[in-house]
Parts: sequence; structure tokens; C-alpha cells
Amino acid sequence: MEHKRVSVVEVGPRDGLQNEAHTVSTQDKVAFVDRLADAGFRRIEVSSFVAPKWIPQLADAQEVFAGIHRRPGVEYSALIPNVRGMERALRCGIDAAHVFMSASETHNRKNVNKSIEETFSALRPVIDLAHTEHLPVRGYVSTAFGCPYEGRVPAEQVMDVVKRLVDLGVDEISLGDTIGVAVPTQVTGLLAGLAKVLPISRISLHLHDTRGTAMANVLAGLQAGVTCFDGSLGGLGGCPYAPGASGNLATDDLLYFLTQMGYETCVDEGKLAETAAWFESVMQKPLPSHARSIARKASGSA
Amino acid sequence: MEHKRVSVVEVGPRDGLQNEAHTVSTQDKVAFVDRLADAGFRRIEVSSFVAPKWIPQLADAQEVFAGIHRRPGVEYSALIPNVRGMERALRCGIDAAHVFMSASETHNRKNVNKSIEETFSALRPVIDLAHTEHLPVRGYVSTAFGCPYEGRVPAEQVMDVVKRLVDLGVDEISLGDTIGVAVPTQVTGLLAGLAKVLPISRISLHLHDTRGTAMANVLAGLQAGVTCFDGSLGGLGGCPYAPGASGNLATDDLLYFLTQMGYETCVDEGKLAETAAWFESVMQKPLPSHARSIARKASGSA
Repeated sequence: MEHKRVSVVEVGPRDGLQNEAHTVSTQDKVAFVDRLADAGFRRIEVSSFVAPKWIPQLADAQEVFAGIHRRPGVEYSALIPNVRGMERALRCGIDAAHVFMSASETHNRKNVNKSIEETFSALRPVIDLAHTEHLPVRGYVSTAFGCPYEGRVPAEQVMDVVKRLVDLGVDEISLGDTIGVAVPTQVTGLLAGLAKVLPISRISLHLHDTRGTAMANVLAGLQAGVTCFDGSLGGLGGCPYAPGASGNLATDDLLYFLTQMGYETCVDEGKLAETAAWFESVMQKPLPSHARSIARKASGSA
Repeated sequence: MEHKRVSVVEVGPRDGLQNEAHTVSTQDKVAFVDRLADAGFRRIEVSSFVAPKWIPQLADAQEVFAGIHRRPGVEYSALIPNVRGMERALRCGIDAAHVFMSASETHNRKNVNKSIEETFSALRPVIDLAHTEHLPVRGYVSTAFGCPYEGRVPAEQVMDVVKRLVDLGVDEISLGDTIGVAVPTQVTGLLAGLAKVLPISRISLHLHDTRGTAMANVLAGLQAGVTCFDGSLGGLGGCPYAPGASGNLATDDLLYFLTQMGYETCVDEGKLAETAAWFESVMQKPLPSHARSIARKASGSA
């Protein structure tokens, strides 16, 4: 383990909230993003410019971007589905564009109603537009380990998608274990293959803890040289009827792990814990991270 | 990773039930143990011969041992606190004696009301008696990574306790991360030290997932050559008011992990899942494993 510095991309305001039924006010979203920046996150995925009819929870992306207090050195990014969304996002002054597709054909079709081939064509002008505006582009590759429709996704298939995204100009790839099936052998194997396609410093892992394997996959990633991981504060976006079981890897749990392992992040764990506790009150329900469970027990509130 | 065969010690009937408020009938305990054996477990911790006043949930140890159907090749063990307990256990025909102590002074005192030094003296005749009867002895070392009273437990302190237990004749050590604070760097470091004291083949890991780090610690153990892990089916014994957060590593989750990683266990995953589902109905509450959460969602029952 050479790298002792690790960065965490906080995706709670976008990926977390998009998977929650509870609607959060624009004001609370703005405060959430501001608190995350204050806690030390350098990269925050603020919202999504997917059409509001698909993701009503994030329909106020423009207002959220208008409301946040930009902190120097923090990258405020957003999820961008197409040129139209990119144009809206540019007017909001995003710092980075996050595009997405799946490594498996069926999931990609179900998710964006396009074939993988058509998706590349649709993403090209988005990526070009971002680069014209000198913005970095992150490409999410969903179902990079397993697909709910097709089962295990072969590494070659993921490598092909990644290679084509890199050829289109994507600067960084975030590999999504969308349904939380990955184990370390698979992570290690895929990363070894991808290291021939792009530098490991440009690969992030976006893990789900559906089967309790997320942190072991973080370890496998660290051992392979990965230095960037996605997390959602409190495990926001976890399945509401299976607490603790099913959502994004919780940033608070990830930070405990990284800190105890001797890695440096820029995040203040105290402020992070306060923010998680506050956001739990906003959501009016327990958040599923282990850290929140411990905190609730300690305070006698659950 | 040289070892492709891994064994799992199922501790649910003892360590799981001892931490559950719900009282399970002797008949259901017997059926539980029999189902575990039928599912393929070769090592099952059946009960405890600690005085019933301390652990009323397991007061029927004798009746459970009398009721189970011994399957050839399966080791039916029990937790033994002292000579008196050992004598009761011998009359029940246990196959292995499991003794226990803590690596930290305060936890040991709170748990067994003795100093660490006094505990060695108390365990000596128990171990001697086991050996006279040609039974193998497993020694649990609790708080091997962290203590709720003393914080982080230095590796040297754990190594000292392990060394003395080995000198007393303990055949196998199970390192307990009692409060679930360990991370892989600590596991790796401690195992490297212990490998000088006894062969890695005689060290097991008994992990708790309190902070979401258990499976990463399993990976660190596997990488260090550990071939035996403890698990509690369904995560039985998890904190009742923090589902999914706090208990023993769930055997069903562990087996998913090991199987997907290419390790062979003797356990039939289908029978394991059926047993977990059945025992959930016995407990009359959801069990906290990830596997159970997924199964409940799939069946629409939660």
C-alpha cells in the first residue's frame, strides 16, 4: 500500500437522495452541501440534471446550485444525462460533469432506454461540450461487476466500455457495483485489466454494501492502488425497508475504515458525524450506516 | 492466497443465542443444531456450561446435547468457564472444549470477575481435564483488537495472552474483535506477530461487524493464511435495537463472500439459507444478516 492519501467523493446529495422517497427541501439540500464542504470534502456530487420527470427528487438542481456557498478548492459536480442537461448544468456553473452508462446491455437499456452503442453516441457531444468549457468528465460505469438481469458481468465487457469512454475523452472512471455483488477477487481482476487501459489514479470505486462485501472491496481497491472512493453519508439511499443492508457504501463508515488504516483524507470526522446526525433529522428516519447506529445507541435514541 | 479450503465454526447456537433476549425452546435449539450439521457445518458450538444464573438463555445445555442427533465427522463443542462446567460438559459428551478470556484486564475482570493472571490459573485444570479426555481445546481471546474500557489493545498484550494459553495446552486460538473496531492493518499486524507463537493454521478469527469492517478483516485474514472463521447464522446475537449493525459476522454473508472468492467450505448454501429463514421464524424477528435482508425483500415479506 503505497498511497497514504485517499480522496472520497461524496455522492449523498445526488445518488443518495435520488433513491429516497422522502422529499428534501431545497434549503436543506443547500445546507447539506455546504456542511459537507465545511467538513472537508473536496469533491461533492451536488445534484442531477436528468429530466425532473425521471428523478423528481432532484428537480431543483438549478436552485441548489444557486444556493450553495462555493468554497475554494471544492469541486461541485452533477450528473448529466445529455446535451440538454449539460446546457442547464453549465448555466449553473458546475465544476465537473458526471456521465453514466452501464457495462451490461440490459441494465443500460432499462436505465437510459438506449443500447450501449447508442449511449456512446449520446455521450460524445456531452463530453465534447464539457471539454470546450474546460470541465473534467467522470464516467460512471454501472453494473461493472454484476447486472440484475444478466448476472456476472465479464471483465472484458467492462474493459471495453471503459476503453471507449476513455477514447471519448472521459477523464476518470468510477466503477459501480450497482447491486452489491462484487468480492475482492473480482475487484482485483478487473483493476488489473483496467490498469492497461488507464492509470489506476483515474479509477474510482463506487461500492454498495448489499451483501456486506463493500469494505473488503475497498481494501482490494487500496491494495491495487486505487486512491478514490465514492460514499454516501449515513448510507443515504439505502433501501428503506432493509436498513443497513442495501445501499451505497456509507461515507462515515468508509472514513472510519480509512482513518484507522492510516490513510489521510481531508475530512473532519467530527463535523462529518454532526452532519450525518443533522441530516438524519432532516430525513426523519434512521440512516443505515454503522456509524449512525452506534451514535444512536450512544445517545440512547434508538 | 494459497489455501482454497476454509472452515467456518458456527457459533450461533451459543454466542448468538446468548446475546438474544428471546428465549428459544430446547426443541428448537436441537433442531437448529441438527439443521446446521445437515447443512454441512463440521464444527458447531452447541451451547455453554457457564452457570445458568449468568446465561439463562443457555441453561438447557445438557438437554440440548442429549437431544441432538450426532452426525459423524461433526465436532459438537461448548463454552466452558471452569472445572465444574467442564465436568457437566464431559457428561454430555462434548467433542471439544472452548475456553475464554480477554486480552484486556478490565474487560476480563468485568466478564469473568478475575484478573488475567487468575484466569490462567482457573483455566489450567479445565484444559488439563480436556486433554485427559483427549478433547481439543479452543481458546477465545476476546478484546483482541480493542476493549470497551481500555481502547486499542496492543498486539504485544494479545501475543502474551496467546502465548500463555498455548503454553497451557490450548490447541487453537480464536481472536475476538469483541466490539468490532478492528481494521485490516491491525489484523495483518497481529497475525504476523502471532505466527511466531503458533502456526497460522491454529488461529481463527471471530469478527464483529459493528463498524462494517468485518469482511475486510476476513480478507486480511485470508491473505495472512487464516483458514478458519467464526460466524453466527443470520447475524444472530446482533444488537436488537440496531439491526444490521452490531453483532457477530453473519455466517450466511461470510459464506457468500468465501464462495464467490473461490474458497471451498463444506456448507450447502441452499440449506443454510433455509435454516436461516426457519430460525428467523423461531426468533419471531428479522435477523440482521445482509443475506436475510435480501431474502426478505425477494419474498416481499419486509
